[in-house]
Formats: sequence, C-alpha cells, structure tokens
Amino acid sequence: MPKPELLESFPNPYADRDYEIFMTCPEFTSLCPLGGIESDANDLELLKGGAPDFATISITYVPAKLCVELKSLKFYLWSFRNAGIFYERVVNRILDDLVKAVKPRRMSVVGDFNVRGGIKSVITANYTSAKKSRR
Amino acid sequence: MPKPELLESFPNPYADRDYEIFMTCPEFTSLCPLGGIESDANDLELLKGGAPDFATISITYVPAKLCVELKSLKFYLWSFRNAGIFYERVVNRILDDLVKAVKPRRMSVVGDFNVRGGIKSVITANYTSAKKSRR
Amino acid sequence: MPKPELLESFPNPYADRDYEIFMTCPEFTSLCPLGGIESDANDLELLKGGAPDFATISITYVPAKLCVELKSLKFYLWSFRNAGIFYERVVNRILDDLVKAVKPRRMSVVGDFNVRGGIKSVITANYTSAKKSRR
Amino acid sequence: MPKPELLESFPNPYADRDYEIFMTCPEFTSLCPLGGIESDANDLELLKGGAPDFATISITYVPAKLCVELKSLKFYLWSFRNAGIFYERVVNRILDDLVKAVKPRRMSVVGDFNVRGGIKSVITANYTSAKKSRR
Amino acid sequence: MPKPELLESFPNPYADRDYEIFMTCPEFTSLCPLGGIESDANDLELLKGGAPDFATISITYVPAKLCVELKSLKFYLWSFRNAGIFYERVVNRILDDLVKAVKPRRMSVVGDFNVRGGIKSVITANYTSAKKSRR
Amino acid sequence: MPKPELLESFPNPYADRDYEIFMTCPEFTSLCPLGGIESDANDLELLKGGAPDFATISITYVPAKLCVELKSLKFYLWSFRNAGIFYERVVNRILDDLVKAVKPRRMSVVGDFNVRGGIKSVITANYTSAKKSRR
Amino acid sequence: MPKPELLESFPNPYADRDYEIFMTCPEFTSLCPLGGIESDANDLELLKGGAPDFATISITYVPAKLCVELKSLKFYLWSFRNAGIFYERVVNRILDDLVKAVKPRRMSVVGDFNVRGGIKSVITANYTSAKKSRR
Amino acid sequence: MPKPELLESFPNPYADRDYEIFMTCPEFTSLCPLGGIESDANDLELLKGGAPDFATISITYVPAKLCVELKSLKFYLWSFRNAGIFYERVVNRILDDLVKAVKPRRMSVVGDFNVRGGIKSVITANYTSAKKSRR
Amino acid sequence: MPKPELLESFPNPYADRDYEIFMTCPEFTSLCPLGGIESDANDLELLKGGAPDFATISITYVPAKLCVELKSLKFYLWSFRNAGIFYERVVNRILDDLVKAVKPRRMSVVGDFNVRGGIKSVITANYTSAKKSRR
Amino acid sequence: MPKPELLESFPNPYADRDYEIFMTCPEFTSLCPLGGIESDANDLELLKGGAPDFATISITYVPAKLCVELKSLKFYLWSFRNAGIFYERVVNRILDDLVKAVKPRRMSVVGDFNVRGGIKSVITANYTSAKKSRR
Repeated sequence: MPKPELLESFPNPYADRDYEIFMTCPEFTSLCPLGGIESDANDLELLKGGAPDFATISITYVPAKLCVELKSLKFYLWSFRNAGIFYERVVNRILDDLVKAVKPRRMSVVGDFNVRGGIKSVITANYTSAKKSRR
Repeated sequence: MPKPELLESFPNPYADRDYEIFMTCPEFTSLCPLGGIESDANDLELLKGGAPDFATISITYVPAKLCVELKSLKFYLWSFRNAGIFYERVVNRILDDLVKAVKPRRMSVVGDFNVRGGIKSVITANYTSAKKSRR
Repeated sequence: MPKPELLESFPNPYADRDYEIFMTCPEFTSLCPLGGIESDANDLELLKGGAPDFATISITYVPAKLCVELKSLKFYLWSFRNAGIFYERVVNRILDDLVKAVKPRRMSVVGDFNVRGGIKSVITANYTSAKKSRR
Repeated sequence: MPKPELLESFPNPYADRDYEIFMTCPEFTSLCPLGGIESDANDLELLKGGAPDFATISITYVPAKLCVELKSLKFYLWSFRNAGIFYERVVNRILDDLVKAVKPRRMSVVGDFNVRGGIKSVITANYTSAKKSRR
Repeated sequence: MPKPELLESFPNPYADRDYEIFMTCPEFTSLCPLGGIESDANDLELLKGGAPDFATISITYVPAKLCVELKSLKFYLWSFRNAGIFYERVVNRILDDLVKAVKPRRMSVVGDFNVRGGIKSVITANYTSAKKSRR
Repeated sequence: MPKPELLESFPNPYADRDYEIFMTCPEFTSLCPLGGIESDANDLELLKGGAPDFATISITYVPAKLCVELKSLKFYLWSFRNAGIFYERVVNRILDDLVKAVKPRRMSVVGDFNVRGGIKSVITANYTSAKKSRR
Repeated sequence: MPKPELLESFPNPYADRDYEIFMTCPEFTSLCPLGGIESDANDLELLKGGAPDFATISITYVPAKLCVELKSLKFYLWSFRNAGIFYERVVNRILDDLVKAVKPRRMSVVGDFNVRGGIKSVITANYTSAKKSRR
Repeated sequence: MPKPELLESFPNPYADRDYEIFMTCPEFTSLCPLGGIESDANDLELLKGGAPDFATISITYVPAKLCVELKSLKFYLWSFRNAGIFYERVVNRILDDLVKAVKPRRMSVVGDFNVRGGIKSVITANYTSAKKSRR
Repeated sequence: MPKPELLESFPNPYADRDYEIFMTCPEFTSLCPLGGIESDANDLELLKGGAPDFATISITYVPAKLCVELKSLKFYLWSFRNAGIFYERVVNRILDDLVKAVKPRRMSVVGDFNVRGGIKSVITANYTSAKKSRR
Repeated sequence: MPKPELLESFPNPYADRDYEIFMTCPEFTSLCPLGGIESDANDLELLKGGAPDFATISITYVPAKLCVELKSLKFYLWSFRNAGIFYERVVNRILDDLVKAVKPRRMSVVGDFNVRGGIKSVITANYTSAKKSRR
C-alpha cells in the first residue's frame, strides 16, 4: 500500500515569493481492487482478478516553507504499484499525503486514468491553505 | 430505450471534500429517430431509415454522497444502442438519469456527435444542486 | 442569394433548462463579390472574376422555445453557393436569419474563411436576447 | 448477421484503366460473440455479456468491370450492428463478400478495432485476382 | 460541365531534366449527380437533390515539353463547381484532360473526397507515357 | 519603409452591432536593422548584415464605422519587405497605422517572429477607443 | 517471471488465406534488473534499486493453424509486472514464447521503451517460418 | 555560475503604451547540483555525478522604460551551461536578474524542464511592479 | 537575381564514406515574375504586380570532396529575395548552382511553395553524378 | 573532447538472431567550433564566439556479439558538451566510436541539429560489417 513515509522535503529557497510548481508523472500504475476490496496483490493469481490500472498523475502547488523532493516523490508513487485501490482514493490520498508532507499554500492533484470498459476517467482534487496567500 | 435502472452508485469515499470526476465514452451509439418518431428499432428494415448515430459522451460532476459506478454506467450507455432518439434528448436524458441516480453537487453532460449532412453537433447541458457547494 | 425561408425549426424538447447547442459546417462556399458588387453569379465568365470563397461556419446557441432543424440548416447554407457576398455580410446575415427563425436566448456565429492573398480571416458575431437567461 | 445481399454495384466507367479506390468507414460496430459463440444479439440481457465492438473498416481496390455502390456498402456495414462475430471473421468476411460482389482485380480490407483489455488489434486481409492486372 | 479548353500550358524551362511537380487544391467542389444522372445543376431546387461534394485534388507529374499554367488550372477546377458528376469520373476526367493538355512523361491524380454517409473515398489514377523516361 | 498611405477602408456594413474581425498573415517579412539603425536596405551588401526577419502578423478588431480593406492590408504589409526595423516597432507601428486608418472600437496586433539566436519572440499591443463599446 | 503457460490459442478461422494480425499494448511494465541481475522483485526496498520500466509492446504476425487468444495474451504480458529483466530479453522472450505457442508463418515483436537517462530505446525482433508462405 | 552582468537593455520605443513581449528559449541547459551542492562543474568527472538538465525558458513582460536586448539575453542564458543549480533557483534567479536589469511593469518566467526519473517539472514565477500599470 | 558566387565550400572531413546531409530552410522568399517576365523588382510599384512568394527549400546530398558551407548557403538563398522568378526555375537553378559549387555524388532539391490561388505547389529535382557511388 | 573510452558493452543475450536496437537521445549538446577551429571551450568568453549547438542523436544497429551499455552511452554523449566540433564530425565520430566499441553487423547514426541561421541540418551516416548478415 502507498507509503507516505517515503516522501521527503527540502526548504523552499524562495519562500517569500508565491510561485507555482507543476510535476507530472505519466508512469503511474496501481491495481484494480479485487472484488471491490482494496488490498496488496503481489501474486499473479490475484492479478488475474485485480487488473493493473495506468494513469498520469499531475501535481500543481504553491510551496510555503517546504518543497517536495523529486526523487522521494518518485519512490512514493512507485509504492502504489502493487496496491489494489480505487481511482477516487488514489487522487485524494496523494493530495492528503503531500499536503501533510509539505503544507503548501495551495495544491491540486489530477489523476488521468487509461480507458477501462471504453470509458476514460479523470479525477481532480484541490486543497487551499486556511492561511491567506500572499499573491 | 435507455434503461436508467441499470445505473448503480457507491458511497463517495471522500464526501467531505469537493472534487471533480470526469468520464468520457467515445463509443456511444444510438439510432436516428425514424420519420422523426423516437422508438426502438432492432430490425434491419428500420435501420435503413433510422440510421446509426455515433457520439462521444463526456460527464463531469462533483459527487455529494454517491459516486457513479463505472461498469453500470457502461451498461446504461449501451442501452441506447438500438433506441431511435434525438441528439437533444440523448444529452438531457443522460443528465436527468444521472442526477436522479447520484444527486451530485453539480454535473454537466456533453454529447459530441459525428458529422451528419456535413454538419457536426455538440450539445452541452448542466445541472447545479440547489444546496450550496462547499468550495 | 441566401434563402432564409429554407430554415425550419422544431419545439425545444427541454425548454425549461438552458443548454447549449454547437453546430459546425466545414463545407461552406460562396462567391467573392464581382467588382465589389454583391450578386448572383451562375456563369463561368463571372466566376473568373468572382472567385469562390470557402469557410467553416460554426453556430453556438442556447435555444428558447425552438431548435434549428439540422437538415434545413444544411439547405440554407447551400443557398449561399452561387451568391457573390462579402465575409462580413455572410456571418452577420446568418446570425440575423437564425435569430429570426428560432429566437434563441443567445447565439454566436463564427465564419473561418480560407486564406486569400496570404491572409486568413475569421469573423465572429454575437446576439443576446433582451429577456434574461435562466442560468 | 451480415447481409451481403445488400451490396450493389455499378459498371466501372473507366474499365480500361487500372485505378485505385479507397473507402474508409470509422463508424463500424458489431458485438463480441457471447461465450465465444457467434450469433445475433438484439436483447439487452445478451448485450451485458456480448459487449459492443467498434472499428474503422478500410477498403482499397482496383475495380475490374464493377464498382461498389457507396450507399449499399453503408447498408451492408450497418448489417453487422447486432451480430456477435470475431474480429478475424469481420475482416475476412467483408473481403469475401465484396470480392464476390464486384470481382475486383485486387482488394484489401483492414479492420482497426478499438482497445479491449488494454490491447488494440488491426487485421489486414488481401485478395488478388488470378487474371493478370494491366498495370 | 468541366471545361478543358480553359487549361493553358507554357514551355518547360528545364525540359532536359526529369523533375517532378506536385500541385494540390483543397478547395475543389462539384455536385452529386441527381438521380444518378450527371448534369449541370445551377438551380436551388436541383441542389436539394444533387448535394454538393467537396474534395482535395492532388496532381503529380513529370513534365515533358509543357508545364501546366497554374492560374488556368485554377479556372479549370472551378468549372466543376456546378456540374453533377461521379467521384470516379472527376478523377479520371481531370487526368485525361491534363494529359491531353501537357503530354507529361507521367502523371497521377488523387481525389480525396469528404465523408458522405459516414464513408470517406479517395480515388487515384495514373498515366505513364509510352515514351521511355530519361531517369 | 512601411507605407500607411496604402491602407484603404470601406464602410462597416453592420455598424450597429459589435462584432469581431480576426486577420492573420503568416507571410510577413522585414529586415533586421543594420548596426541597430533602422533604414531601407535594398542592396545585397546590406543584406549580409541586415538579415531578413519572418513573422506571422495577427490583427483582431471590432470595427466602428470602417473596415480594413483586405487587399490594401496585403499591400501595406508588403511595404515592410525591404525596411530595416525592430520587432517592437513593427507591431506598434502596424497598430498605430491601422487605428488611424479605421478608428476601431478596439484592436490588437500580435507579431509572432521566427526563432533568432535560439530565441522566439512574440509581441502583443492593444488599443481601446475612448468611446464606450456597445457590448 | 514471465509465464508462457498463460498463453492460449484458438484455431485460425481463415487458415487457407495469409492475412496479418497486429496487436499493440501500450500498458506493458516490468522492472529494471537490480545490479544487473535479472530476478523477481516484489519488495519496495528492491524497487528503490530495480526501477519500473514502461513500454508499448507491438506484435504483428501471419497466423498458420493457430491464433493468439487476446485475453490470454493480456495475462501473459501482465506476468512481466514484477520481473527484473533487460529490454533485449523482454522483446526476444515474447517472440520466442509466442512463436512456440502459435507457430505463425511470420511474426515480429517491437518493444518501444520510455525514456531512461534521456535516451529512448526501441527493440525489434523478427521470426519467419522455414515453411514457405503462401503469399 | 549565471552572469547577470551580461544582460543589456535598450530604451522602450513605445514607453507610453502597455504592451507585452514574450520570449522563449527551447535550448536552455544547466547541470544538476552535485550531491545537492550548487557549484560550477566544468570537469567531466563532476559531470558523471552532476547530470545535465535541459529546459525551455519562457519570459513574458510588459516593459516600462527599458527592453531586454535579445542577444544579451542569449549570452546570459548560456552562462548557466556549466553551473550546478536547482530548478527552483533557475527560474526565480532569472526573474530576479531580469527585473533588476529592465524594471518591467510586470514579468513572468516559466521553466519547463525535461523528464527526470519519469517526472516532468514546470516552475512558474511572477513579478508585478508596485507602480500601477497604465492598462 | 540569385548570386551563386556567394556559395562557399569546405573539404569533406569524411570523404572516404558515403553519408547524407539534409538541410532545410523554411524562410525562402522571392518574387512572382511581373507580367511573366523574370526580373529584379526592388520597387514597391513593381511589388504590387510582382507579389512575394514564400517557400521551404530542402536540399539533400551525398558529398564527394566538398561540403556546402552553411552560412554561405544562407546568403545565397537570401539573394533570391528581390528577384522575379518562376517556381520551376528556383528549384532547378538552386540544384544547378549547388552541383557546380560542390560536385556531390548525388543531390536533390525540393521547393515547397505556399498556397497561391488556392493551389499549393511542390517541385522536386534530382542530380546523380556520372561517377559510381561507393555505397 | 569526446571520450570513447567511456563506452561500455555487454554480451548480446540473443546473439544467434539478427534483431534491431534503436536508441535516440534528444538532449545532445556541443559547441560550434570557434573561428572554424575545433577545440575545447569551457570559458564564457569563448562561448560568445563558439555558440552551443543542440541535436537529437539517433542510433540504430543490429548487434553481433556485443550490445552498447545504455548508461555508458549517456556518459559518452555528455563528453561532447564542451567540445567545439562540426556537425559532420559529430555524426561520423559517434559512428566510428560505436562501431569500434561493439562491432555491430550494421549501424546508422543520425544527427538532427536545431535551426541555425534559419537552416536546419540532418546528417546520416551508415556502417555495414564486411561479414555477411544472417538475415
């Protein structure tokens, strides 16, 4: 299952200016929950039921005191690889984990999932800090 | 004719956050109403008059307590396959059926129909819940 | 010359909801006015001077009580085929004729004309009903 | 099931020159055979199992004495709409039916089917008349 | 009907080298033959039946002693505007008229016609002079 | 140097409606000022220093009483061909000359210049009439 | 590690004609071999070293007596998900396993791998049966 | 390390009008900081650790009294070539250096960096002069 | 008129291997011959008649002992800027001048001219040395 | 200057089958030789003269006993970063160095260089082993 403890941060080098960071990862993969139950599925027998999902995950944020360390984000996204998890949870979970890790002024996460059953899904979730933004 | 009873829902796992779900189905097909009269036409003789229509149907919504179950949406959209129905009704009908099924905070449905007689048509209908959105 | 009497309408099946209809016709053709005088030119001798124009005509509107009947729109647009007419008049004339035919809540017409003399032209005209829109 | 008797032809107006005709139909749809058994499925209950397939069918041929009548080809392709049939049969069957109908010098049929289970399929079949081509 | 007498030529300035000239006109329009009978149709009543066709006509040739004069080609292609004529005849007729006008070493004509009834057609015809090409 | 006296206008045929005209010319060319001094450079020796610039010039305006005559605009743009002139001046000069010629309600000019030294430049200038726009 | 025993076949319904089947799967993923040693890596600690690879696998073949069953191909490709394996082996191994499973007249496999270290790799391997092809 | 002293300016020739200048350089390259320490790295041994970064840098501004001299901007951007520097600093540093050099009414800098570790980054920073803009 | 004396060459650094050099210039411009008479036209009055032509010139060659110096090619192509010259001559002339300047093993020149009168033209001319190529 | 000693190889795991490996690196950069003299230029003063060049380098080969190690290829291509070197030498040098390192059955190298002075250059060089290829 996703491991938020892998996320690392570093001090924002331009913390007195509101600027935007956009990161996009076209290589996200997780598993469809088997029988609608979210779980870890490392076994091929399970894979037959819990089919792989593929998505592009895009993150946009205005950093406050901390920035997301890029390499740790990569490891964090890899940790979904063998987890059985719903689309809606993938996107909201990433948003929750990243907000907790770097406490940004604002952040949005978009999950653009590949076609399944002839239907494509895109989920978008947003967060805005209660503190007033400077710009 | 379309069968809204096929639509299923599941509880929104992040109901305390307003987030957006976009689903698009490029494989929608229905029939042109024969002689301007909407009907079911499963017979080839009818098909000669009531020509097939093809469209991409796109749905965007902010869920409240319920989410649209993806597989059931697929079956619901398939139920238009042999119905003779106008473009305007396709889009407004899908909006009405989905609003009834999941009572979203807001929803829009776009039907992007293939060229007929050298003219392309795109129909867009929107719904906003009377209840105030949180974001 | 354009024949607005060809335009037909049908009752808007969802008249109590503001929704948008977009129609685009990439096969519009008319003639350049000969010597700057707008006229009908069915004769090849005239054609040498009054060169053919080609355009994509796009129409977006929110219907009130009536919708544009698609086939009649096609015949109406064909009626420009052998008319000598300026770009500005094409677009404003189509807007006037359609507004008169279906009395929409709002409508826009865009004429995107092919390059002539190394210059491309796009003309956009809008209409908004004096009556307040519902949405 | 497909109805080759719908196909009509007309005499090739330039039969003394080998020239090529390419026709492509992006609006082909049939049904997946239910339980691997090819059949007609006009009933929604069946549709749940026998999912719709979508394809672009492209035909290239050099006519001999006869040309394919375009409108009859459209009706013929529509006759697959409610048939449960394999990809391989769709393409080879169309080739067989058309070869029988117009006896071309050579012909190829390509079926480019939409993604299913994350995999896209394209089937190509060719026919060459035993008689020597002129060019 | 098409007027080949409009075609003009000029002496090939580099007649001792085989080189290729490609010309493409995306603004070709003619009429669909009414009731399958090819004719001139300048009247709107006829137009209702004999619908406009649109195509891109592309010509590739290796000139011998003569080149096609570009402006006269434009006038010649305009002369199809109000003629009711089949696709196959359009392409083969243009090839015949141009071969007669400039006697090229080799020439091909491609007519890429807009979608009609959900099907796109492309016709290709070739000519090679009996005289041996130099290269 | 640019010759604004070439610009011609004609009366706006729909002067009582605010509508928008967009014109774009991808074939604009002028010369880089030699040694930073703007001048006319018709001589090849000069050309070695004063290199050619290429741009797409796009003009959007809402006409008041007058419209820009298209052919005269073409001749006006050609008059920059052998002038040595800065990017900033090209765009602002065209805006000034056109505003003076047709006194529009509002107008914008965009010059999108080809890459020089690995850097692409796009300059945008706007004008709004002091008189209140109707829409 | 890849499980060729998952591959299933069905009798070629048109075995007396040489025709081509192309299948492409844009959702292939495996792992980079850790320390250059190919292995199974289901553990996140390993994943840090053995990074995920992503590729589009395309297969083209002319069937002899057997066709590849599409669903079993999907399961077979999934079985690479947690294997540490080199690009060269992925492509040649898939070719070997498929040739063994359906004994085609000819087959090619292309692996188009995502950029790593700023370099993209595409590997192509071919097989031709010793038996003479019919066409 | 970046050399802002290379930046040159020239007087804005249209200083009494607010207009926008956009410049984009797709050929920006710098080095990844070695061991997270920003430095100059001209030595190949260092390069093995401090890998090259590639980006498109885009600058949009409304000039006040001064414009950026294009050639000097090119030299300034080249001066990052062998510097080890973070993405966030690249974008904010260019903004600071350019604001200092030409004191614009407003300016934004966007750095669109090539994929690293399967993740693409885009950084955007903005500046607005305290003085009120004229338009 | 074009000045072949501007062309410079340098010794082919890999003269013992046949390799290919492709160069393409999308910024070629010349003038349409006025009244069909090729000439130099530096005067605006002439420009009204002799309209500017724009083309992309592409050159592919296998060098023998000499390579084309890139900067001198640029100056040579600029020398067509104010010459009134036919398309056919532009392409064949550039081929002749370059063959004379660097005596390549083989060379082709393609002139892809912008649309004029709704028709696009592309001219291609080839040269092959009488001496046998090594590869 | 380029360091071929950085190139590493590994044994071809499928040496008994001829298969093709394509690698493309869109992030190649070197320097233009200063005053036409090829050299190393790590100093900004030199950079003013010896401008950076950017290219996409693509390599296609059929391995014999050895394959190119991907990471070592990356380091080798980086070693051109501060070298002043002609386009022709870049491509032929890479071919020579790689042929020496892995002795392939055949190999081609393509250098696609960014526009300089309005002209784009693409250089292609090929190598074929004297030993007969198996396929």
